[in-house]
Amino acid sequence: MNNSALVVLSGGQDSTTCLYWAIDKFGHENVSSLTFDYGQRHRIELTSAVEIAQVADVPNVILPIDTFAALGGDALTTEEIAVESALDTETGLPNTFVPGRNLIFLTFAAAFAYQRNIGHLVTGVAQTDYSGYPDCREETIHSLQTAIQNGMDAAIQIHTPLMHLSKKETVELADRLGALSAMAMTHTCYNGQRPPCGNCPACALRARGFAEAGVVDPLLL
Amino acid sequence: MNNSALVVLSGGQDSTTCLYWAIDKFGHENVSSLTFDYGQRHRIELTSAVEIAQVADVPNVILPIDTFAALGGDALTTEEIAVESALDTETGLPNTFVPGRNLIFLTFAAAFAYQRNIGHLVTGVAQTDYSGYPDCREETIHSLQTAIQNGMDAAIQIHTPLMHLSKKETVELADRLGALSAMAMTHTCYNGQRPPCGNCPACALRARGFAEAGVVDPLLL
Repeated sequence: MNNSALVVLSGGQDSTTCLYWAIDKFGHENVSSLTFDYGQRHRIELTSAVEIAQVADVPNVILPIDTFAALGGDALTTEEIAVESALDTETGLPNTFVPGRNLIFLTFAAAFAYQRNIGHLVTGVAQTDYSGYPDCREETIHSLQTAIQNGMDAAIQIHTPLMHLSKKETVELADRLGALSAMAMTHTCYNGQRPPCGNCPACALRARGFAEAGVVDPLLL
Repeated sequence: MNNSALVVLSGGQDSTTCLYWAIDKFGHENVSSLTFDYGQRHRIELTSAVEIAQVADVPNVILPIDTFAALGGDALTTEEIAVESALDTETGLPNTFVPGRNLIFLTFAAAFAYQRNIGHLVTGVAQTDYSGYPDCREETIHSLQTAIQNGMDAAIQIHTPLMHLSKKETVELADRLGALSAMAMTHTCYNGQRPPCGNCPACALRARGFAEAGVVDPLLL
């Protein structure tokens, strides 16, 4: 595998920061991005990802995944289910939890990287502000990296530059890396609104991070 | 998670044997099966899976995965690429290798199981007669189980009853478990032929197993 990097670009704030992190670390010409069209209710995320890749001037490929919609049952892909701020009383997880979503995203990203001899994957998961998603934890990513390396017999590494950063620190990192102009294209709101609703858990987390970093969110300008 | 089992049923000989193994181990009423429509060239595999589940009298669900076809480049999903008996000189893998295929199948199966509180997954991968697929190795399955347990925060176990059996022993196991009647519906041939071509690597492996076990392959009756 070579020393180039593939960033899993969701169209949100964290993956955009990772894109600029990868450009800084691997060199602009060695970075590409991959976005999943998995039936997310908010198609605006896909537009955001394309726009962000354009601003950053890196290639972007959109790969379809129709399986999550067929599995059904979560608020991120199913129109009928409202996004709740509260946790599910039975599982203790937000009802936006798609079981195994990041495992699937990263494994498909690894397959894509394998075919192109790309040695590095970059994902914006973080366990610091981790809002109930077990597939964002460092332990999960480490074990998945082992499974991918074994299963593909390839030394693909997964990088999680935001893993131990607070949202405040992520905003500071984005600012330092020059990612703020692309940040204006990002989409975070669970309710798919633009300007963002400001009330859903994702909007609240984002607003707090920018406020604590003392940076004005370019999305609100 | 409860004590029921989900068998990943491809429509082939090995997963059919696993289905009967699961019925024997977990009890008939606790077993269901899941088949993936991932754009395989040989749609007959899907028909086989449905017929096998009917003969075994267990529920079967077919889940779509459109991502592998979008990734492209392998002989199992791409019409234009002929199945070669030889290994790829560059990767040392058969050109039927879909990178990460079993990782994806098992992770989606785990997501399906998670939603239904099913605690056990069963897959027919084997490293004994392992013909160049790193995602069939025990090490891969173990590390994937860890990744799934971490990523879903659920004690889902992956069972691989055929892992250390030769094809001969798998045929003997199928015979002992009463799986031979369902075996007549299975599909193995990489060239999608029925009766099987007898020449592709999959046909050759199957024929050798039945011959060594001294059992007549019901598919040829």
